[in-house]
Amino acid sequence: MKDQLITISEPTLRRLPLYYQFLLRKKQTGDTSVSCPQIATELELTSIQVRKDLQAAGATGKPRTGYVIDEVLEVLSELLGYSNTKDAFLVGAGNLGIALLDYEGFEEHGLKIIAGFDKDKDKIGKVFKGKRIYPIDEFEHLAKRLNIKIGIITTPAFAAKEVCDIMIKSGVKAIWNFAPIHLNTPDEIIVENVNLTASLAVLSNRLERSIE
Amino acid sequence: MKDQLITISEPTLRRLPLYYQFLLRKKQTGDTSVSCPQIATELELTSIQVRKDLQAAGATGKPRTGYVIDEVLEVLSELLGYSNTKDAFLVGAGNLGIALLDYEGFEEHGLKIIAGFDKDKDKIGKVFKGKRIYPIDEFEHLAKRLNIKIGIITTPAFAAKEVCDIMIKSGVKAIWNFAPIHLNTPDEIIVENVNLTASLAVLSNRLERSIE
Repeated sequence: MKDQLITISEPTLRRLPLYYQFLLRKKQTGDTSVSCPQIATELELTSIQVRKDLQAAGATGKPRTGYVIDEVLEVLSELLGYSNTKDAFLVGAGNLGIALLDYEGFEEHGLKIIAGFDKDKDKIGKVFKGKRIYPIDEFEHLAKRLNIKIGIITTPAFAAKEVCDIMIKSGVKAIWNFAPIHLNTPDEIIVENVNLTASLAVLSNRLERSIE
Repeated sequence: MKDQLITISEPTLRRLPLYYQFLLRKKQTGDTSVSCPQIATELELTSIQVRKDLQAAGATGKPRTGYVIDEVLEVLSELLGYSNTKDAFLVGAGNLGIALLDYEGFEEHGLKIIAGFDKDKDKIGKVFKGKRIYPIDEFEHLAKRLNIKIGIITTPAFAAKEVCDIMIKSGVKAIWNFAPIHLNTPDEIIVENVNLTASLAVLSNRLERSIE
């Protein structure tokens, strides 16, 4: 398992949830196996890519049946951490933060957000789907007590660096950053950025090019 | 302008909003110029990369002063479409959809979501920051009447393909897809994916590797 984790490239890793999603849908429509070209067509990849990706994940197809859906789902679920839910704290209870707190779909994907934090007194004490908003001053104490390793930042850009420092001081090892800003962190801290303004920039720019 | 748009690579394009954000903060603290190495340190890039990125965007530094902040902000704002707001329709008024409807920050970044759509009768007619939720059946009619070119999909994965087809039929040219599914679209349709489950997979996997 360790070796597998180490050898999977990031592009492959980002595609695996798409395979998972597709196979789950096939299963729901009653299928038990699926061929490599079928997957390739659906996801607009080459068959070679599909075979390589699934092999990296530890799943191999069979000569006539192709991939057994249940087997591949199990392998992917294990690898993607869906079967081993981790707790997380979120900082920044604005619209995006509350949407993430409210969204229960992450639990299927191995992430459970168990509390939110903010410095705005109007937000503190509110509860969303059983998850309470605490004052940011309590982050360190609670994160250490509950041994929280994942922090989610949904503050505006100007506040994100300070929050990032608080998280690191509190023992957080992995940061899911939604603030549109680059975080300077020590090497051992994992940062995964979801930068909606960057994504929007690509969309707008391509659209303008296509219209001109 | 046309040539500039064509020559900017996607990695550069994704970094430009980070430059913009950083320069805006420098301006807010009273600075009027900033050196290339300063930008590079802040964003953890090389000076060569910074110079190349900004040059691609059409901004050049000056020997002694470095980059004049106002000049670069103007160039980036133009290039990223911040000064030319485009209207968009959103489909899928779940938590994420409502968060995006509610979020006013996109307008600064050139995107104005003017209405939402859903097929759930309980959601239809609700209004978020002045943006009403309409039945999905009215999408085509309204999109054509208002000449909408951007569609945002925030439905669950299973519903996204059907919504994508409706958008294309209605004249949408660019789709911002938040559903964790691959959309098969004609070549001329621009699709920009924000796949939170893929992002989460990378975060979880790296964290597991670092803990083992």
